Amino acid sequence: MRRTVAEHQAAVAGLLRSGYDAGRPEVLPLADALGRTLAEDVRAPVSLPPFDNSQMDGYAVHAADLADPCALVVAEAIPAGSVPPALERGTAAPIMTGAMLPPGAAAVVPIERADPPRFYSAAERAGGATVTLPRGVEAGLFVRRAGSDIPEGETALPAGTFLGPAQLGLLAGCGVGRVPVRPRFRVLLLSTGDEVAEPGAPLAPGTIYDANTTLLEAALRDAGADVTRHRLLGDDPAVLRDAFAAIPSGSTDLVLSTGGISQGAYEVVKQALTGSSVEFSSVALQPGGPQACGTISGVPFLGFPGNPVSALVSFEMFLRPALSRVAGSPAPRLVLDAVLVEDVRSPEAKHQVRRGLYRNGEVALVGGPGSHLLHALAASNCLVHLPEGVGSLAEGDSVEVTLIGPVPQDPFAAQDVPVTGLPVPD
Amino acid sequence: MRRTVAEHQAAVAGLLRSGYDAGRPEVLPLADALGRTLAEDVRAPVSLPPFDNSQMDGYAVHAADLADPCALVVAEAIPAGSVPPALERGTAAPIMTGAMLPPGAAAVVPIERADPPRFYSAAERAGGATVTLPRGVEAGLFVRRAGSDIPEGETALPAGTFLGPAQLGLLAGCGVGRVPVRPRFRVLLLSTGDEVAEPGAPLAPGTIYDANTTLLEAALRDAGADVTRHRLLGDDPAVLRDAFAAIPSGSTDLVLSTGGISQGAYEVVKQALTGSSVEFSSVALQPGGPQACGTISGVPFLGFPGNPVSALVSFEMFLRPALSRVAGSPAPRLVLDAVLVEDVRSPEAKHQVRRGLYRNGEVALVGGPGSHLLHALAASNCLVHLPEGVGSLAEGDSVEVTLIGPVPQDPFAAQDVPVTGLPVPD
Repeated sequence: MRRTVAEHQAAVAGLLRSGYDAGRPEVLPLADALGRTLAEDVRAPVSLPPFDNSQMDGYAVHAADLADPCALVVAEAIPAGSVPPALERGTAAPIMTGAMLPPGAAAVVPIERADPPRFYSAAERAGGATVTLPRGVEAGLFVRRAGSDIPEGETALPAGTFLGPAQLGLLAGCGVGRVPVRPRFRVLLLSTGDEVAEPGAPLAPGTIYDANTTLLEAALRDAGADVTRHRLLGDDPAVLRDAFAAIPSGSTDLVLSTGGISQGAYEVVKQALTGSSVEFSSVALQPGGPQACGTISGVPFLGFPGNPVSALVSFEMFLRPALSRVAGSPAPRLVLDAVLVEDVRSPEAKHQVRRGLYRNGEVALVGGPGSHLLHALAASNCLVHLPEGVGSLAEGDSVEVTLIGPVPQDPFAAQDVPVTGLPVPD
Repeated sequence: MRRTVAEHQAAVAGLLRSGYDAGRPEVLPLADALGRTLAEDVRAPVSLPPFDNSQMDGYAVHAADLADPCALVVAEAIPAGSVPPALERGTAAPIMTGAMLPPGAAAVVPIERADPPRFYSAAERAGGATVTLPRGVEAGLFVRRAGSDIPEGETALPAGTFLGPAQLGLLAGCGVGRVPVRPRFRVLLLSTGDEVAEPGAPLAPGTIYDANTTLLEAALRDAGADVTRHRLLGDDPAVLRDAFAAIPSGSTDLVLSTGGISQGAYEVVKQALTGSSVEFSSVALQPGGPQACGTISGVPFLGFPGNPVSALVSFEMFLRPALSRVAGSPAPRLVLDAVLVEDVRSPEAKHQVRRGLYRNGEVALVGGPGSHLLHALAASNCLVHLPEGVGSLAEGDSVEVTLIGPVPQDPFAAQDVPVTGLPVPD
């Protein structure tokens, strides 16, 4: 079956939706919820700020003294955390940032605008110290009104919000200690084939080390999924069929395999799934053209092609966006326009995805189009899109790139930020 | 002490360097190394590919038959993972993608260009089947040469490389099972003050919930640091001094506190550290002006201001870039140019950092400049830089933004990627 990239993306999203149950939220303490996605709207149980408070260290001024705050008697100081008595007319209370505004007060004058521009000691206050403030203080000056950030009962964060530091900080600030998050997406990652060896083991002639399982496990974990690795020995389709039959229902949201789905004479995944409802497609994508998608014994299944670059491109083009859509995380990749620093050719009938290094609005290709170029992939920080219908592009043309790694960059001028992360290849 | 943003950035980086020992790498299995930073160069113990192999499913052609590969006798098929016998002149061997090229072969012709364009069965081969291939096959066609991605002994990844899925995949492909990574940066996060309550506990009048500890713990963890929380009761400087004295040397790379470093009458951190080597600065930054930086009993110490937005801005402007530089992770934030969709004013004497929502090259401000606006911070995905010397900017002007959260975006046309992540506020 031939498919466009968009058609296969829709098929993968539909497949994931059929198996993933977003309706069983986990309730986690805030400290465990980083990077998760909110399953339900969370309302603010208190207003932020919870009460009118001072934005500055200074003097709280009575509403009746705003026009002419001259020679005011200095009242008891108000530290943050206390509940102050009412402010009397003709007095000014030293008040600290974040402290509750006393009843009667209408504004705060910062200490540096007071005369004298310093706080009195307790002994000075007891001796009847006075302070003079500038005339014509505006009501509300340096007062943070209760609820001005968010009023009690309003939605603090809607369902689907990705929980980063700021979002968790807001929930903590509202007093919310535990949050309902969507369940992690559970993936069973299958590795098959006689020709691949585990990293660290000796390499027999004719065999290669298994890069795909490590690469996809990391990519899935990075995207927030729970991953289980399952190694099948041998190239026997029956072993694979038995493995599928043994998956306990309800424990796995997706089975993912690589390799064995192409046009060769020994395609173990294809052979094992003959007669099943899994569809084997040729997607107009390079690399990543051969794709398998369907269910086996009711469990959603995706088969990616076996070259490591093809596997990563398949993940980034099909699975990661579907996880974003269906499970709410990971956050979508950033797609940017970039200026090509070289000419490039591409097969017009396919959406070609090259690897590149993006920096300061420009992109250089890293390595050729070959899907075995793992070292070049590891030295790149973006996927470069050469869409269907495009046969060639010239230096200076604009392309879209998907950022998949750290961007070395010249930071804004005033900031002495180092350039670290991925080294630029020679 | 008055400082520019760049001066304080340099001071913080210097402080972190004085305490962090990058020279004690941890050696981790690949599966545990995601998001870590390589401590040493890693060389490829094998070439990639390890041997000449086929890029396609097709026929391996003898060097002597390239010019006229007509009616070649079909030899034994070569699956991936096997070691094939030498190819004889006048024969062609069916060969699968990734399979070792047989000695004598010089090229591979894809199966779809063969006549017939399908693989024979074993019985057909035994019966003396022949195949005809196009004339004039180029030597090297569809052959992946040993070492063409990386030759044995070359640096696969240099020290300082941030380890994402592609980098771990490369190491696995090279057979490297364990990698030396830089140690995690260890932070002791202090919370102080009587006026803050733990989320989930009841809120006494005049007090607020502690947002900073949750926010900074998440920000530090997100940046790859190990975080220990340490809650100090009371506002007594002596308690804080005792806590510092009790930190075991060699267990903490940084102590971080928030609040208590400003110009008020009750600044517990400042009072506790009177006479120490900690410097209290006024940085030309808003929010985040008051900053403390130094060592206590030999342990590096940073004090951030106490409002949540000030704390996050301090983290993003000073601590996160220093962690990138000194510990090698996290990867630096992406800084982009964006077009303002509204007019904005800024104090000329300071680098003002506003919160914004970046999308499709444009940025809208979220909330006002107030450093207590936690809800607005949680609804933003970037920091907007209004540098020193800039008093106002107009709609359509360009500003630099630092991305700190997911970007909702219109994906490239052919890709049906959903817009999820952070919801856009009303």
